[in-house]
Amino acid sequence: MKIIVIGATGRVGQKLVAKLAEDKNDQILAGARKPEAIMKAANVKPFKIDLHDTKADLLAELPEADALIFAAGSGGRDLLQVDLNGAVKVMIEAAKKGIERFVMLSSRDSLTPDAFSGDDPSPLANYLIAKHFADLWLIKNTTLDYTILQPTALTETPGTGKVSLGEYTNHDNSIENVANVLAQIVKSDNTIGKILPMSDGATPIEDAVSEA
Amino acid sequence: MKIIVIGATGRVGQKLVAKLAEDKNDQILAGARKPEAIMKAANVKPFKIDLHDTKADLLAELPEADALIFAAGSGGRDLLQVDLNGAVKVMIEAAKKGIERFVMLSSRDSLTPDAFSGDDPSPLANYLIAKHFADLWLIKNTTLDYTILQPTALTETPGTGKVSLGEYTNHDNSIENVANVLAQIVKSDNTIGKILPMSDGATPIEDAVSEA
Repeated sequence: MKIIVIGATGRVGQKLVAKLAEDKNDQILAGARKPEAIMKAANVKPFKIDLHDTKADLLAELPEADALIFAAGSGGRDLLQVDLNGAVKVMIEAAKKGIERFVMLSSRDSLTPDAFSGDDPSPLANYLIAKHFADLWLIKNTTLDYTILQPTALTETPGTGKVSLGEYTNHDNSIENVANVLAQIVKSDNTIGKILPMSDGATPIEDAVSEA
Repeated sequence: MKIIVIGATGRVGQKLVAKLAEDKNDQILAGARKPEAIMKAANVKPFKIDLHDTKADLLAELPEADALIFAAGSGGRDLLQVDLNGAVKVMIEAAKKGIERFVMLSSRDSLTPDAFSGDDPSPLANYLIAKHFADLWLIKNTTLDYTILQPTALTETPGTGKVSLGEYTNHDNSIENVANVLAQIVKSDNTIGKILPMSDGATPIEDAVSEA
């Protein structure tokens, strides 16, 4: 299977590429602004992509693939260009390229408007609004076979291999757990059309994803 | 006719309320975060609205009306909360309130993605992205009777009463001209479903809108 990862040098993206590369039957097409920073492996092919680019340039940059995982983010520094418009441009151009499977790394509360409105909004309100409109574009304005993963706060703790999918049982998410869940989701058609809350939890990842 | 103006204390909103108030048959429901700053007139009724509010609060704040003109903006300071999510929340809650007519003050290039992407994007790129997704929400995700006005750069010059609608013949737009065009559009059903570029020009406003 040919799998594109957008944001391959990010905190989640790096671990995601490494996890996907463990399956030697797959080819990982790892996209980032600085492709020279992407890990080297026989089945990992780096490519340059800049989410500020025009749609025509993005279409040219995207390789052919069976699926795409969007794991890019600006860390709050460029939300409108990267997290919102960058994501939507990739959806549009991926569809033109014939890539039908789209896995979105989103966030807890991206589809809960009251979390980012009112007198006491989330400290991540602007980030959540950007993810909100990107997620809704994917759901409402594309025909892509999407899965939207909504983890809680990401932590640098080692992966436990055990998670909760569909509900939150914990405030935290090991980044490694998130990467491993994304790697499983992209091969699990039962997750198509689903919006999946996620936290660290008690269920082995393989079971959690297959029962999602 | 009962007409809501959102952003009634803004640069365009102030002049818009004043223009609409000239027709004594109309009632102007002028919404702003600081309603005490809204002009006093027999047919102008101020109300408080904060675009950061939850959807439920916005529904309670919005009065009954025949039409709504969205002229609010954060001046680039709070684009995700105000210009994007604030606008979309108002669309959703206005529709719930039975307000079918929605006039959006947008901007030149709000629907031209290449203007805010690539190596040399507009200096207003972030603003344009916020307006882009607000405008597209109005077009794609509502059944409101919309008109989207796309003026070029706003200037403090006095209104000439003459404009170009449908194409750009000038770099500038007198704010007074923009306000007067919005006041005409809200009463002109021929503009429903239209996206109207606008600059200062050579055609009297009444003619330009009726031929739009």
